[in-house]
Amino acid sequence: MEQVSSNKAHGGEQNVYRHASTSTGTDMTFSVYVPPHEAGAKLPVLWYLSGLTCTHANVTEKGEFRAACAEAGVIFVAPDTSPRGPDVPDEDRYDFGTGAGFYLDATEAPWAQHYRMRSYVEEELPALIAAEFPMADIARQGITGHSMGGHGALTIGLRNPDRFRSISAFAPIVAPMQVPWGETAFTRYLGEDRAAWRAYDACALIDDGASAPELLVDQGLSDNFLGDGQLRPELLEQACERAGIDLTLRRQPGYDHSYYFISTFMADHIAWHAERLK
Amino acid sequence: MEQVSSNKAHGGEQNVYRHASTSTGTDMTFSVYVPPHEAGAKLPVLWYLSGLTCTHANVTEKGEFRAACAEAGVIFVAPDTSPRGPDVPDEDRYDFGTGAGFYLDATEAPWAQHYRMRSYVEEELPALIAAEFPMADIARQGITGHSMGGHGALTIGLRNPDRFRSISAFAPIVAPMQVPWGETAFTRYLGEDRAAWRAYDACALIDDGASAPELLVDQGLSDNFLGDGQLRPELLEQACERAGIDLTLRRQPGYDHSYYFISTFMADHIAWHAERLK
Repeated sequence: MEQVSSNKAHGGEQNVYRHASTSTGTDMTFSVYVPPHEAGAKLPVLWYLSGLTCTHANVTEKGEFRAACAEAGVIFVAPDTSPRGPDVPDEDRYDFGTGAGFYLDATEAPWAQHYRMRSYVEEELPALIAAEFPMADIARQGITGHSMGGHGALTIGLRNPDRFRSISAFAPIVAPMQVPWGETAFTRYLGEDRAAWRAYDACALIDDGASAPELLVDQGLSDNFLGDGQLRPELLEQACERAGIDLTLRRQPGYDHSYYFISTFMADHIAWHAERLK
Repeated sequence: MEQVSSNKAHGGEQNVYRHASTSTGTDMTFSVYVPPHEAGAKLPVLWYLSGLTCTHANVTEKGEFRAACAEAGVIFVAPDTSPRGPDVPDEDRYDFGTGAGFYLDATEAPWAQHYRMRSYVEEELPALIAAEFPMADIARQGITGHSMGGHGALTIGLRNPDRFRSISAFAPIVAPMQVPWGETAFTRYLGEDRAAWRAYDACALIDDGASAPELLVDQGLSDNFLGDGQLRPELLEQACERAGIDLTLRRQPGYDHSYYFISTFMADHIAWHAERLK
């Protein structure tokens, strides 16, 4: 693991690292904010998964999470959204290929070789964080994310209730099997068999029995992708109601899909996770 | 004045505008954050001037000012750092020409025609803000900035004590006449007569009798430009001591010159200005 940059911020350290990933077969870059803490302290870890087109850098620069993490004593980890590199297949579109890994392990050629973001985010990177950050208390993890990363947070959290005590999302894709972004991506990454898609769809996971003590979701009502039918928070609402999951879905008038929206509610989410990770 | 973008953030509006500037003879872009407020309320205005290479966008995206401005009820205005465009002379370096206007009115060819950032920031843009933002209380203005923009904030504030009730800066160039960045820029923008430079040097202005009730400056001690001798906060300290100006100079261990530093202390500065602009 190579340190790419290190900046003191809000009393802690905002660092960026690069490492050779065995999951993706590429170098992967991620950022970690470690808040100020006493020597020997063990701190909870909040994962943040980014949306389409993003890298670790968007939230690291624009997410406004550090003040809240410093106050709550929470480590904040932001992975990339896909493999990248000259050997990684890609297409000239924003919603598939590079920057659009959908937090799944692709099974179809030519994507299956490198597009293994599920293994990377669910297994490899947590093991690396546990090994390299002695102050990280791996018994206390929460997960959140934005849009495609909200999909990632919900699905990874729901599949691993023993590991994630708290799950939230900003404007998540809650039912990728039922919306254009997800149908396009899943068909090509996973093939035509929709049964194989269900492990990557929050609403399907809930219908199939996955659960969580509670969920927090913020959704801007002026979000153009809400209007386009890519997000469909009502489907998560219905799935949670059927399953008896305590969902707090906050519809926020006037807010769009951007980091101006995310940064507005970031401190709320961090405090909410911190409370549950105490 | 044309609106380039508008995003709801922290309960208010983060907007970006473009207009044809008579000062620079170019289109100029700036951002304004208007916090949530009651209809008819009048709000103080805090100016933020950016550093070398920056536009309005750097602080708008990375400055972490909106939560504090929303809490304090302060409007935040971020201009660009130089004229830009196909007709604007430039050179392939980061510390002179485009992105490096130094908040002065150039007098030397070929810079004098467009590089008129003093007139733009000191006169034209305040008049535009007063005309277009009815909630802006022009009787209550503060000014801050970073690096070259800290130089801008100090010099504009010191030259206009009737207009700026509060002046602060992040890692400012406090004595451009005595450091490489300033000597290079002033020689070429203003010519060889160093007497003409004094209006653009905070320490010279103070020695020539300019004053302020107090000043707040944060300076990171791991700032590479501090080590390079471009910033020299001790010269401001000495000038303020000679003049009896109440300077709070906070030397911050471990912090560098980046927005990770700025964003860490931004809320402090906004609260400090808000207290003085009440």
